[in-house]
Amino acid sequence: MARAQDSSDYLIAPDPGAARLTRAVGGMDHNGDETTINVVEERPLTIFLNAQEIVTAMTIGDYPAYLALGFLRNQGMLVEGDEITRVNYDEELETIVVRTARETDYEDKMRRKTRTSGCAVGTVFGDMMEGLEGVTLPQTPVRSSWLYALSAKINRTPSLYLDAGAIHGTVLCHHDKPLVYMEDVGRHNAVDKIAGWMMSERAPADDKILYTTGRLTSEMVIKTAMMGIPVLVSRSGFTAWGVEIAQEVGLTLIGRMRGQRFVCLSGEDRLIRDADPSAVAAEPRKSGRKGAA
Amino acid sequence: MARAQDSSDYLIAPDPGAARLTRAVGGMDHNGDETTINVVEERPLTIFLNAQEIVTAMTIGDYPAYLALGFLRNQGMLVEGDEITRVNYDEELETIVVRTARETDYEDKMRRKTRTSGCAVGTVFGDMMEGLEGVTLPQTPVRSSWLYALSAKINRTPSLYLDAGAIHGTVLCHHDKPLVYMEDVGRHNAVDKIAGWMMSERAPADDKILYTTGRLTSEMVIKTAMMGIPVLVSRSGFTAWGVEIAQEVGLTLIGRMRGQRFVCLSGEDRLIRDADPSAVAAEPRKSGRKGAA
Repeated sequence: MARAQDSSDYLIAPDPGAARLTRAVGGMDHNGDETTINVVEERPLTIFLNAQEIVTAMTIGDYPAYLALGFLRNQGMLVEGDEITRVNYDEELETIVVRTARETDYEDKMRRKTRTSGCAVGTVFGDMMEGLEGVTLPQTPVRSSWLYALSAKINRTPSLYLDAGAIHGTVLCHHDKPLVYMEDVGRHNAVDKIAGWMMSERAPADDKILYTTGRLTSEMVIKTAMMGIPVLVSRSGFTAWGVEIAQEVGLTLIGRMRGQRFVCLSGEDRLIRDADPSAVAAEPRKSGRKGAA
Repeated sequence: MARAQDSSDYLIAPDPGAARLTRAVGGMDHNGDETTINVVEERPLTIFLNAQEIVTAMTIGDYPAYLALGFLRNQGMLVEGDEITRVNYDEELETIVVRTARETDYEDKMRRKTRTSGCAVGTVFGDMMEGLEGVTLPQTPVRSSWLYALSAKINRTPSLYLDAGAIHGTVLCHHDKPLVYMEDVGRHNAVDKIAGWMMSERAPADDKILYTTGRLTSEMVIKTAMMGIPVLVSRSGFTAWGVEIAQEVGLTLIGRMRGQRFVCLSGEDRLIRDADPSAVAAEPRKSGRKGAA
Protein backbone atom coordinates (compact mmCIF):
# COMPACT_ATOMS: atom_id res chain seq x y z
CA MET A 1 0.00 0.00 0.00
CA ALA A 2 1.17 3.52 -0.75
CA ARG A 3 3.22 5.40 1.78
CA ALA A 4 1.80 8.68 3.02
CA GLN A 5 4.20 10.86 1.05
CA ASP A 6 4.20 8.76 -2.08
CA SER A 7 3.08 10.79 -5.09
CA SER A 8 5.71 9.30 -7.34
CA ASP A 9 3.41 6.90 -9.19
CA TYR A 10 1.17 9.73 -10.34
CA LEU A 11 1.43 11.24 -13.81
CA ILE A 12 -0.08 14.37 -12.23
CA ALA A 13 -0.34 14.79 -8.46
CA PRO A 14 -1.49 17.78 -6.40
CA ASP A 15 1.20 20.34 -5.62
CA PRO A 16 0.15 21.79 -2.26
CA GLY A 17 3.51 23.59 -2.08
CA ALA A 18 2.82 25.67 -5.20
CA ALA A 19 2.86 29.30 -4.11
CA ARG A 20 0.19 30.37 -6.59
CA LEU A 21 -2.50 27.98 -5.32
CA THR A 22 -2.86 28.97 -1.67
CA ARG A 23 -2.44 32.08 0.46
CA ALA A 24 -1.70 32.48 4.16
CA VAL A 25 -4.47 34.63 5.67
CA GLY A 26 -4.41 36.06 9.19
CA GLY A 27 -7.40 36.12 11.49
CA MET A 28 -8.49 35.28 15.01
CA ASP A 29 -9.46 31.91 16.40
CA HIS A 30 -12.18 30.92 18.89
CA ASN A 31 -10.03 32.05 21.81
CA GLY A 32 -9.42 35.47 20.28
CA ASP A 33 -5.83 34.55 19.54
CA GLU A 34 -4.27 35.62 16.26
CA THR A 35 -3.99 32.76 13.82
CA THR A 36 -2.85 32.32 10.24
CA ILE A 37 -4.40 29.68 8.02
CA ASN A 38 -3.69 28.48 4.52
CA VAL A 39 -6.55 29.29 2.15
CA VAL A 40 -7.03 28.15 -1.46
CA GLU A 41 -6.99 30.74 -4.22
CA GLU A 42 -10.05 31.25 -6.40
CA ARG A 43 -9.52 33.02 -9.70
CA PRO A 44 -11.75 33.79 -12.66
CA LEU A 45 -10.81 32.20 -15.99
CA THR A 46 -12.81 33.31 -19.02
CA ILE A 47 -12.96 30.60 -21.66
CA PHE A 48 -13.35 31.50 -25.34
CA LEU A 49 -14.03 29.06 -28.16
CA ASN A 50 -12.67 30.88 -31.21
CA ALA A 51 -14.43 34.27 -31.22
CA GLN A 52 -17.19 33.16 -28.83
CA GLU A 53 -16.92 33.92 -25.12
CA ILE A 54 -18.35 30.83 -23.45
CA VAL A 55 -18.08 31.09 -19.69
CA THR A 56 -16.06 32.44 -16.80
CA ALA A 57 -15.02 29.66 -14.46
CA MET A 58 -13.82 30.17 -10.90
CA THR A 59 -10.71 28.04 -10.52
CA ILE A 60 -7.57 27.66 -8.44
CA GLY A 61 -5.77 28.46 -11.68
CA ASP A 62 -3.59 25.41 -12.35
CA TYR A 63 -3.91 23.65 -15.71
CA PRO A 64 -6.04 26.31 -17.47
CA ALA A 65 -5.65 24.58 -20.84
CA TYR A 66 -6.89 21.22 -19.52
CA LEU A 67 -9.78 23.02 -17.81
CA ALA A 68 -10.81 24.87 -20.98
CA LEU A 69 -10.51 21.83 -23.25
CA GLY A 70 -12.28 19.54 -20.79
CA PHE A 71 -15.06 22.02 -20.10
CA LEU A 72 -15.75 22.53 -23.82
CA ARG A 73 -15.60 18.79 -24.44
CA ASN A 74 -17.88 17.92 -21.52
CA GLN A 75 -20.33 20.58 -22.72
CA GLY A 76 -20.42 19.03 -26.17
CA MET A 77 -18.98 22.25 -27.62
CA LEU A 78 -15.93 20.34 -28.79
CA VAL A 79 -16.70 17.00 -30.38
CA GLU A 80 -14.72 13.99 -31.52
CA GLY A 81 -12.75 15.04 -34.57
CA ASP A 82 -12.65 18.76 -33.87
CA GLU A 83 -9.13 19.87 -34.67
CA ILE A 84 -7.64 22.13 -31.99
CA THR A 85 -5.33 24.51 -33.80
CA ARG A 86 -4.21 26.65 -30.84
CA VAL A 87 -4.81 27.30 -27.14
CA ASN A 88 -3.75 30.74 -25.88
CA TYR A 89 -3.70 31.41 -22.14
CA ASP A 90 -3.23 34.97 -20.90
CA GLU A 91 -2.53 34.85 -17.18
CA GLU A 92 -2.78 38.62 -16.78
CA LEU A 93 -6.13 38.93 -18.56
CA GLU A 94 -7.31 35.65 -16.98
CA THR A 95 -8.56 34.43 -20.34
CA ILE A 96 -7.95 31.35 -22.42
CA VAL A 97 -8.85 30.99 -26.09
CA VAL A 98 -9.31 27.59 -27.70
CA ARG A 99 -9.09 27.72 -31.48
CA THR A 100 -10.43 25.05 -33.79
CA ALA A 101 -9.97 24.44 -37.52
CA ARG A 102 -13.72 24.79 -38.15
CA GLU A 103 -15.49 27.88 -36.83
CA THR A 104 -18.17 27.30 -34.19
CA ASP A 105 -21.16 29.24 -32.99
CA TYR A 106 -22.84 28.58 -29.66
CA GLU A 107 -25.35 31.39 -29.58
CA ASP A 108 -28.17 28.89 -29.12
CA LYS A 109 -26.34 26.83 -26.57
CA MET A 110 -25.46 29.99 -24.69
CA ARG A 111 -29.10 30.98 -24.50
CA ARG A 112 -30.32 27.88 -22.70
CA LYS A 113 -28.50 27.13 -19.50
CA THR A 114 -28.91 24.45 -16.92
CA ARG A 115 -28.09 25.03 -13.35
CA THR A 116 -27.11 21.73 -11.82
CA SER A 117 -26.39 20.49 -8.36
CA GLY A 118 -22.82 20.12 -9.37
CA CYS A 119 -21.28 23.54 -9.90
CA ALA A 120 -21.52 23.28 -13.68
CA VAL A 121 -22.61 26.65 -14.85
CA GLY A 122 -23.17 26.66 -18.54
CA THR A 123 -24.13 23.04 -18.82
CA VAL A 124 -26.63 22.47 -21.57
CA PHE A 125 -28.41 19.65 -19.85
CA GLY A 126 -30.68 18.61 -22.69
CA ASP A 127 -27.67 18.27 -24.96
CA MET A 128 -25.82 16.25 -22.36
CA MET A 129 -28.71 13.81 -22.05
CA GLU A 130 -28.86 13.50 -25.85
CA GLY A 131 -25.11 12.99 -25.86
CA LEU A 132 -25.67 9.92 -23.72
CA GLU A 133 -27.88 8.15 -26.24
CA GLY A 134 -24.87 6.92 -28.22
CA VAL A 135 -22.88 5.93 -25.15
CA THR A 136 -22.17 2.28 -24.39
CA LEU A 137 -19.69 1.59 -21.61
CA PRO A 138 -17.31 -1.39 -21.83
CA GLN A 139 -17.71 -4.36 -19.47
CA THR A 140 -14.33 -3.74 -17.83
CA PRO A 141 -14.26 -5.62 -14.52
CA VAL A 142 -13.34 -3.72 -11.34
CA ARG A 143 -11.86 -5.44 -8.28
CA SER A 144 -12.83 -4.37 -4.78
CA SER A 145 -9.13 -4.75 -3.85
CA TRP A 146 -8.37 -1.97 -6.35
CA LEU A 147 -11.03 0.28 -4.80
CA TYR A 148 -9.61 -0.17 -1.30
CA ALA A 149 -6.05 0.44 -2.53
CA LEU A 150 -7.10 3.54 -4.48
CA SER A 151 -9.09 4.96 -1.62
CA ALA A 152 -6.24 4.46 0.87
CA LYS A 153 -3.60 5.89 -1.46
CA ILE A 154 -5.63 8.90 -2.57
CA ASN A 155 -6.55 9.83 1.00
CA ARG A 156 -2.87 9.80 1.98
CA THR A 157 -1.60 11.72 -1.01
CA PRO A 158 -0.43 15.21 -0.06
CA SER A 159 -3.04 17.56 -1.49
CA LEU A 160 -4.42 21.08 -1.33
CA TYR A 161 -7.40 19.54 0.42
CA LEU A 162 -5.31 18.19 3.28
CA ASP A 163 -3.27 21.41 3.31
CA ALA A 164 -6.02 24.05 3.05
CA GLY A 165 -9.39 22.34 2.64
CA ALA A 166 -12.36 23.90 0.84
CA ILE A 167 -11.51 22.12 -2.38
CA HIS A 168 -12.69 19.11 -4.38
CA GLY A 169 -10.61 16.32 -5.83
CA THR A 170 -11.13 13.95 -8.75
CA VAL A 171 -8.69 11.21 -9.68
CA LEU A 172 -8.33 9.22 -12.90
CA CYS A 173 -7.23 5.70 -11.99
CA HIS A 174 -6.15 2.47 -13.70
CA HIS A 175 -6.63 -0.73 -11.71
CA ASP A 176 -5.18 0.06 -8.24
CA LYS A 177 -3.11 3.03 -9.42
CA PRO A 178 -4.22 6.67 -9.27
CA LEU A 179 -2.77 8.36 -12.37
CA VAL A 180 -4.03 11.95 -12.56
CA TYR A 181 -5.22 13.73 -9.40
CA MET A 182 -6.84 17.10 -10.06
CA GLU A 183 -8.21 19.47 -7.43
CA ASP A 184 -10.25 22.65 -7.81
CA VAL A 185 -12.63 24.95 -5.93
CA GLY A 186 -15.38 23.69 -8.20
CA ARG A 187 -15.75 19.91 -8.24
CA HIS A 188 -16.59 20.00 -11.94
CA ASN A 189 -13.43 21.92 -12.74
CA ALA A 190 -11.49 18.97 -11.39
CA VAL A 191 -13.43 16.56 -13.61
CA ASP A 192 -13.09 18.86 -16.61
CA LYS A 193 -9.32 19.15 -16.09
CA ILE A 194 -9.13 15.35 -16.22
CA ALA A 195 -11.24 15.31 -19.40
CA GLY A 196 -8.88 17.92 -20.89
CA TRP A 197 -5.86 15.86 -19.94
CA MET A 198 -7.42 12.73 -21.49
CA MET A 199 -8.16 14.65 -24.71
CA SER A 200 -4.64 16.04 -24.89
CA GLU A 201 -3.02 12.68 -24.16
CA ARG A 202 -5.55 10.68 -26.21
CA ALA A 203 -5.80 8.47 -23.12
CA PRO A 204 -8.18 5.50 -23.47
CA ALA A 205 -11.16 5.62 -21.09
CA ASP A 206 -12.47 2.08 -21.17
CA ASP A 207 -9.93 0.68 -18.68
CA LYS A 208 -10.19 3.60 -16.26
CA ILE A 209 -11.89 4.25 -12.92
CA LEU A 210 -12.89 7.77 -11.87
CA TYR A 211 -12.70 8.60 -8.15
CA THR A 212 -14.23 11.78 -6.78
CA THR A 213 -14.56 13.36 -3.35
CA GLY A 214 -17.88 14.85 -4.45
CA ARG A 215 -21.47 13.71 -4.58
CA LEU A 216 -22.77 11.38 -7.26
CA THR A 217 -25.26 13.76 -8.85
CA SER A 218 -26.90 13.40 -12.26
CA GLU A 219 -24.33 15.68 -13.81
CA MET A 220 -21.35 13.87 -12.32
CA VAL A 221 -22.70 10.60 -13.70
CA ILE A 222 -23.43 12.11 -17.13
CA LYS A 223 -19.93 13.60 -17.42
CA THR A 224 -18.29 10.33 -16.45
CA ALA A 225 -20.37 8.40 -18.99
CA MET A 226 -19.67 10.98 -21.71
CA MET A 227 -15.96 10.61 -20.97
CA GLY A 228 -16.43 6.88 -21.63
CA ILE A 229 -15.30 5.83 -18.14
CA PRO A 230 -17.31 2.79 -16.95
CA VAL A 231 -16.74 3.10 -13.19
CA LEU A 232 -17.37 6.08 -10.87
CA VAL A 233 -16.42 5.88 -7.18
CA SER A 234 -17.02 8.40 -4.41
CA ARG A 235 -16.68 8.83 -0.67
CA SER A 236 -19.89 10.81 -0.84
CA GLY A 237 -23.55 10.00 -1.29
CA PHE A 238 -25.91 9.67 -4.24
CA THR A 239 -28.82 11.52 -5.73
CA ALA A 240 -31.77 9.49 -7.05
CA TRP A 241 -31.43 10.82 -10.58
CA GLY A 242 -27.69 10.14 -10.58
CA VAL A 243 -28.46 6.50 -9.77
CA GLU A 244 -31.19 6.32 -12.44
CA ILE A 245 -28.91 7.62 -15.18
CA ALA A 246 -26.07 5.31 -14.12
CA GLN A 247 -28.46 2.35 -14.38
CA GLU A 248 -29.69 3.52 -17.81
CA VAL A 249 -26.21 3.79 -19.29
CA GLY A 250 -24.84 0.80 -17.37
CA LEU A 251 -22.24 2.71 -15.40
CA THR A 252 -20.89 1.14 -12.21
CA LEU A 253 -21.71 3.59 -9.43
CA ILE A 254 -20.09 3.13 -6.03
CA GLY A 255 -20.62 5.61 -3.21
CA ARG A 256 -20.16 6.16 0.51
CA MET A 257 -16.73 4.54 0.24
CA ARG A 258 -14.98 4.93 3.63
CA GLY A 259 -12.61 2.45 5.17
CA GLN A 260 -14.06 -1.00 4.46
CA ARG A 261 -17.52 0.25 3.63
CA PHE A 262 -19.07 1.12 0.27
CA VAL A 263 -22.42 0.85 -1.50
CA CYS A 264 -22.88 -0.11 -5.16
CA LEU A 265 -26.19 1.14 -6.61
CA SER A 266 -25.57 0.47 -10.31
CA GLY A 267 -23.44 -1.81 -12.50
CA GLU A 268 -22.85 -4.41 -9.78
CA ASP A 269 -22.04 -6.90 -12.59
CA ARG A 270 -18.61 -5.30 -13.18
CA LEU A 271 -17.65 -5.64 -9.53
CA ILE A 272 -15.40 -8.53 -8.45
CA ARG A 273 -15.19 -8.79 -4.67
CA ASP A 274 -11.65 -10.15 -4.30
CA ALA A 275 -10.85 -8.39 -1.02
CA ASP A 276 -11.91 -9.24 2.52
CA PRO A 277 -13.52 -6.02 3.84
CA SER A 278 -12.83 -7.04 7.44
CA ALA A 279 -9.10 -6.98 6.60
CA VAL A 280 -9.35 -3.32 5.55
CA ALA A 281 -8.31 -0.80 8.17
CA ALA A 282 -10.98 1.66 9.24
CA GLU A 283 -10.24 5.24 8.21
CA PRO A 284 -8.26 7.19 10.80
CA ARG A 285 -10.35 10.21 11.75
CA LYS A 286 -7.28 12.32 10.99
CA SER A 287 -7.65 11.49 7.30
CA GLY A 288 -10.04 14.38 7.58
CA ARG A 289 -11.74 13.50 4.32
CA LYS A 290 -15.32 14.63 4.01
CA GLY A 291 -18.42 13.01 2.66
CA ALA A 292 -21.35 14.85 1.13
CA ALA A 293 -19.17 17.45 -0.52
CA MET B 1 -29.65 23.84 24.50
CA ALA B 2 -31.94 22.34 21.89
CA ARG B 3 -32.97 18.73 22.17
CA ALA B 4 -32.13 16.48 19.27
CA GLN B 5 -35.68 16.33 17.92
CA ASP B 6 -36.55 19.93 18.54
CA SER B 7 -37.60 21.67 15.33
CA SER B 8 -40.43 23.53 16.98
CA ASP B 9 -38.69 26.91 17.18
CA TYR B 10 -38.16 26.98 13.43
CA LEU B 11 -40.41 28.94 11.08
CA ILE B 12 -39.30 26.46 8.42
CA ALA B 13 -37.41 23.27 9.30
CA PRO B 14 -36.33 20.37 7.10
CA ASP B 15 -38.93 17.66 6.57
CA PRO B 16 -36.86 14.48 6.13
CA GLY B 17 -40.10 12.48 6.30
CA ALA B 18 -41.55 14.10 3.19
CA ALA B 19 -42.08 11.30 0.67
CA ARG B 20 -41.30 13.49 -2.34
CA LEU B 21 -37.80 14.46 -1.21
CA THR B 22 -36.06 11.10 -0.87
CA ARG B 23 -36.29 7.64 -2.40
CA ALA B 24 -35.27 4.24 -1.05
CA VAL B 25 -32.82 2.68 -3.53
CA GLY B 26 -31.65 -0.92 -3.40
CA GLY B 27 -28.07 -1.99 -4.01
CA MET B 28 -25.27 -4.08 -2.56
CA ASP B 29 -22.87 -3.19 0.21
CA HIS B 30 -19.15 -3.91 0.63
CA ASN B 31 -19.91 -7.45 1.77
CA GLY B 32 -22.07 -8.18 -1.26
CA ASP B 33 -25.18 -8.10 0.89
CA GLU B 34 -28.33 -6.45 -0.40
CA THR B 35 -28.92 -3.07 1.13
CA THR B 36 -31.42 -0.26 0.73
CA ILE B 37 -30.44 3.34 1.35
CA ASN B 38 -32.32 6.59 1.37
CA VAL B 39 -31.27 8.87 -1.47
CA VAL B 40 -32.22 12.51 -2.07
CA GLU B 41 -34.27 13.36 -5.14
CA GLU B 42 -32.88 15.71 -7.77
CA ARG B 43 -35.36 17.31 -10.16
CA PRO B 44 -35.08 19.92 -12.89
CA LEU B 45 -36.98 23.17 -12.36
CA THR B 46 -37.02 25.58 -15.28
CA ILE B 47 -37.38 29.17 -14.13
CA PHE B 48 -39.04 31.79 -16.35
CA LEU B 49 -39.09 35.53 -15.72
CA ASN B 50 -42.16 36.67 -17.65
CA ALA B 51 -41.64 35.39 -21.21
CA GLN B 52 -37.89 34.79 -20.76
CA GLU B 53 -36.60 31.34 -19.90
CA ILE B 54 -33.77 31.99 -17.47
CA VAL B 55 -32.30 28.74 -16.21
CA THR B 56 -33.02 25.14 -15.31
CA ALA B 57 -32.03 24.42 -11.74
CA MET B 58 -31.52 20.96 -10.30
CA THR B 59 -33.36 20.90 -6.99
CA ILE B 60 -34.90 18.55 -4.46
CA GLY B 61 -38.15 20.25 -5.43
CA ASP B 62 -39.44 21.77 -2.20
CA TYR B 63 -40.26 25.50 -2.13
CA PRO B 64 -40.04 26.12 -5.91
CA ALA B 65 -41.46 29.63 -5.56
CA TYR B 66 -38.87 30.65 -2.95
CA LEU B 67 -36.15 29.14 -5.13
CA ALA B 68 -37.27 31.01 -8.24
CA LEU B 69 -37.74 34.35 -6.47
CA GLY B 70 -34.48 34.05 -4.56
CA PHE B 71 -32.51 32.97 -7.61
CA LEU B 72 -33.81 35.88 -9.69
CA ARG B 73 -33.17 38.29 -6.83
CA ASN B 74 -29.66 37.03 -6.14
CA GLN B 75 -28.89 37.29 -9.86
CA GLY B 76 -30.01 40.92 -9.89
CA MET B 77 -32.79 40.00 -12.35
CA LEU B 78 -35.38 41.10 -9.80
CA VAL B 79 -34.54 44.33 -8.05
CA GLU B 80 -35.91 46.27 -5.11
CA GLY B 81 -39.27 47.65 -6.12
CA ASP B 82 -40.07 45.11 -8.84
CA GLU B 83 -43.70 44.22 -8.37
CA ILE B 84 -44.32 40.45 -8.52
CA THR B 85 -47.78 40.03 -10.01
CA ARG B 86 -47.92 36.22 -10.16
CA VAL B 87 -45.87 33.05 -9.62
CA ASN B 88 -47.13 29.95 -11.45
CA TYR B 89 -45.61 26.58 -10.61
CA ASP B 90 -46.41 23.59 -12.82
CA GLU B 91 -45.23 20.45 -11.05
CA GLU B 92 -45.87 18.23 -14.06
CA LEU B 93 -43.98 20.42 -16.53
CA GLU B 94 -41.35 21.18 -13.86
CA THR B 95 -41.52 24.87 -14.67
CA ILE B 96 -42.15 28.00 -12.65
CA VAL B 97 -43.01 31.40 -14.11
CA VAL B 98 -42.43 34.61 -12.16
CA ARG B 99 -44.43 37.53 -13.53
CA THR B 100 -43.63 41.16 -12.84
CA ALA B 101 -45.58 44.36 -13.46
CA ARG B 102 -42.84 45.73 -15.72
CA GLU B 103 -41.59 43.54 -18.57
CA THR B 104 -37.97 42.46 -18.43
CA ASP B 105 -35.42 41.29 -20.96
CA TYR B 106 -32.28 39.42 -19.99
CA GLU B 107 -30.91 38.58 -23.39
CA ASP B 108 -27.63 40.27 -22.54
CA LYS B 109 -27.41 38.78 -19.10
CA MET B 110 -28.15 35.37 -20.56
CA ARG B 111 -25.28 35.72 -23.00
CA ARG B 112 -22.55 36.22 -20.42
CA LYS B 113 -22.35 33.51 -17.83
CA THR B 114 -20.07 32.94 -14.92
CA ARG B 115 -19.26 29.52 -13.72
CA THR B 116 -18.45 29.77 -10.05
CA SER B 117 -17.08 27.43 -7.46
CA GLY B 118 -20.46 27.44 -5.86
CA CYS B 119 -22.95 25.67 -8.08
CA ALA B 120 -24.45 28.93 -9.35
CA VAL B 121 -25.05 28.39 -12.97
CA GLY B 122 -26.25 31.52 -14.61
CA THR B 123 -24.58 33.88 -12.23
CA VAL B 124 -23.59 37.10 -13.91
CA PHE B 125 -20.51 37.67 -11.84
CA GLY B 126 -19.63 41.13 -13.10
CA ASP B 127 -23.12 42.32 -12.25
CA MET B 128 -22.92 40.78 -8.80
CA MET B 129 -19.68 42.59 -8.08
CA GLU B 130 -21.24 45.86 -9.27
CA GLY B 131 -24.25 45.10 -7.13
CA LEU B 132 -21.93 45.13 -4.12
CA GLU B 133 -20.77 48.71 -4.63
CA GLY B 134 -23.86 50.12 -2.96
CA VAL B 135 -23.85 47.60 -0.11
CA THR B 136 -23.07 48.69 3.43
CA LEU B 137 -23.67 46.13 6.15
CA PRO B 138 -24.94 47.19 9.58
CA GLN B 139 -22.68 46.96 12.65
CA THR B 140 -24.92 44.36 14.32
CA PRO B 141 -22.90 42.66 17.06
CA VAL B 142 -22.72 38.85 17.12
CA ARG B 143 -22.05 36.88 20.30
CA SER B 144 -19.90 33.75 20.27
CA SER B 145 -22.45 32.18 22.63
CA TRP B 146 -25.03 32.52 19.84
CA LEU B 147 -22.71 30.85 17.35
CA TYR B 148 -22.13 27.87 19.63
CA ALA B 149 -25.86 27.55 20.36
CA LEU B 150 -26.77 27.80 16.66
CA SER B 151 -24.14 25.30 15.61
CA ALA B 152 -25.23 22.77 18.25
CA LYS B 153 -28.93 23.16 17.50
CA ILE B 154 -28.59 23.05 13.71
CA ASN B 155 -26.40 19.94 13.82
CA ARG B 156 -29.02 18.16 15.91
CA THR B 157 -32.02 19.22 13.88
CA PRO B 158 -33.53 16.30 11.96
CA SER B 159 -32.65 16.96 8.31
CA LEU B 160 -32.41 15.37 4.89
CA TYR B 161 -28.66 15.60 5.38
CA LEU B 162 -28.69 13.42 8.47
CA ASP B 163 -31.26 11.14 6.84
CA ALA B 164 -29.84 10.74 3.34
CA GLY B 165 -26.71 12.89 2.99
CA ALA B 166 -25.50 14.36 -0.32
CA ILE B 167 -27.23 17.66 0.35
CA HIS B 168 -26.34 21.16 1.51
CA GLY B 169 -27.99 23.21 4.23
CA THR B 170 -28.27 26.94 4.84
CA VAL B 171 -29.98 28.43 7.86
CA LEU B 172 -31.24 31.96 8.47
CA CYS B 173 -30.75 32.77 12.15
CA HIS B 174 -31.57 35.52 14.64
CA HIS B 175 -29.34 35.71 17.72
CA ASP B 176 -29.15 32.12 19.02
CA LYS B 177 -32.29 30.95 17.15
CA PRO B 178 -32.29 29.23 13.76
CA LEU B 179 -35.41 30.45 11.94
CA VAL B 180 -35.44 29.08 8.39
CA TYR B 181 -33.47 25.93 7.55
CA MET B 182 -33.35 25.16 3.82
CA GLU B 183 -31.63 22.19 2.21
CA ASP B 184 -30.96 21.41 -1.43
CA VAL B 185 -28.74 19.33 -3.71
CA GLY B 186 -27.12 22.58 -4.82
CA ARG B 187 -25.79 24.70 -1.95
CA HIS B 188 -26.84 27.87 -3.75
CA ASN B 189 -30.39 26.64 -4.13
CA ALA B 190 -30.58 26.53 -0.34
CA VAL B 191 -29.32 30.13 -0.11
CA ASP B 192 -31.66 31.26 -2.89
CA LYS B 193 -34.66 29.65 -1.17
CA ILE B 194 -33.81 31.67 1.93
CA ALA B 195 -33.52 34.85 -0.17
CA GLY B 196 -36.91 34.03 -1.71
CA TRP B 197 -38.45 33.51 1.71
CA MET B 198 -37.00 36.82 2.95
CA MET B 199 -38.42 38.62 -0.11
CA SER B 200 -41.83 37.07 0.35
CA GLU B 201 -41.91 37.79 4.09
CA ARG B 202 -40.20 41.16 3.77
CA ALA B 203 -37.92 39.91 6.56
CA PRO B 204 -35.26 42.39 7.73
CA ALA B 205 -31.70 41.22 7.08
CA ASP B 206 -29.64 43.52 9.30
CA ASP B 207 -30.24 41.52 12.51
CA LYS B 208 -29.70 38.12 10.92
CA ILE B 209 -26.88 35.56 10.80
CA LEU B 210 -26.53 33.16 7.86
CA TYR B 211 -25.19 29.69 8.65
CA THR B 212 -24.13 27.34 5.86
CA THR B 213 -22.69 23.84 5.64
CA GLY B 214 -20.83 24.86 2.50
CA ARG B 215 -17.57 26.57 1.70
CA LEU B 216 -17.09 30.30 2.00
CA THR B 217 -16.40 31.02 -1.66
CA SER B 218 -16.52 34.42 -3.37
CA GLU B 219 -20.04 33.75 -4.57
CA MET B 220 -21.34 32.68 -1.18
CA VAL B 221 -19.94 35.87 0.34
CA ILE B 222 -21.35 38.05 -2.46
CA LYS B 223 -24.83 36.54 -2.14
CA THR B 224 -24.85 37.01 1.62
CA ALA B 225 -23.77 40.64 1.29
CA MET B 226 -26.34 41.30 -1.44
CA MET B 227 -28.99 39.87 0.86
CA GLY B 228 -27.87 42.48 3.41
CA ILE B 229 -26.89 39.91 6.05
CA PRO B 230 -23.82 41.08 7.99
CA VAL B 231 -22.62 37.72 9.37
CA LEU B 232 -21.83 34.48 7.50
CA VAL B 233 -20.85 31.35 9.44
CA SER B 234 -19.76 27.96 8.12
CA ARG B 235 -18.41 24.63 9.29
CA SER B 236 -16.34 24.62 6.12
CA GLY B 237 -13.27 26.43 4.90
CA PHE B 238 -12.57 29.62 3.01
CA THR B 239 -11.33 30.67 -0.39
CA ALA B 240 -8.90 33.60 -0.61
CA TRP B 241 -11.21 35.67 -2.79
CA GLY B 242 -14.15 34.97 -0.49
CA VAL B 243 -12.13 36.45 2.37
CA GLU B 244 -11.03 39.44 0.27
CA ILE B 245 -14.59 40.34 -0.70
CA ALA B 246 -15.84 39.91 2.88
CA GLN B 247 -13.13 42.32 4.05
CA GLU B 248 -14.02 44.83 1.29
CA VAL B 249 -17.72 44.91 2.17
CA GLY B 250 -17.13 44.55 5.92
CA LEU B 251 -18.93 41.23 6.30
CA THR B 252 -18.13 39.11 9.35
CA LEU B 253 -16.83 35.81 7.99
CA ILE B 254 -16.46 32.88 10.35
CA GLY B 255 -15.39 29.44 9.11
CA ARG B 256 -14.19 26.04 10.24
CA MET B 257 -16.74 26.14 13.05
CA ARG B 258 -16.73 22.74 14.79
CA GLY B 259 -17.31 22.11 18.44
CA GLN B 260 -15.48 24.89 20.30
CA ARG B 261 -13.30 25.87 17.36
CA PHE B 262 -13.81 28.55 14.73
CA VAL B 263 -11.76 31.05 12.75
CA CYS B 264 -12.82 34.64 11.97
CA LEU B 265 -11.06 36.07 8.90
CA SER B 266 -13.13 39.24 8.40
CA GLY B 267 -15.32 41.60 10.43
CA GLU B 268 -13.82 40.59 13.79
CA ASP B 269 -15.12 43.92 15.16
CA ARG B 270 -18.72 42.62 15.26
CA LEU B 271 -17.72 39.60 17.32
CA ILE B 272 -18.31 39.62 21.08
CA ARG B 273 -16.65 36.64 22.76
CA ASP B 274 -19.04 36.07 25.65
CA ALA B 275 -18.68 32.28 25.80
CA ASP B 276 -15.89 30.17 27.26
CA PRO B 277 -14.84 27.87 24.39
CA SER B 278 -13.45 25.30 26.83
CA ALA B 279 -16.98 24.91 28.20
CA VAL B 280 -18.26 23.92 24.76
CA ALA B 281 -18.58 20.20 24.17
CA ALA B 282 -16.53 18.82 21.29
CA GLU B 283 -18.65 17.56 18.39
CA PRO B 284 -19.60 13.90 18.67
CA ARG B 285 -18.23 12.13 15.61
CA LYS B 286 -21.73 10.78 15.02
CA SER B 287 -22.93 14.29 14.22
CA GLY B 288 -21.60 13.24 10.86
CA ARG B 289 -21.48 16.81 9.61
CA LYS B 290 -18.93 17.46 6.94
CA GLY B 291 -16.54 20.29 6.29
CA ALA B 292 -15.30 21.36 2.89
CA ALA B 293 -18.60 20.70 1.21
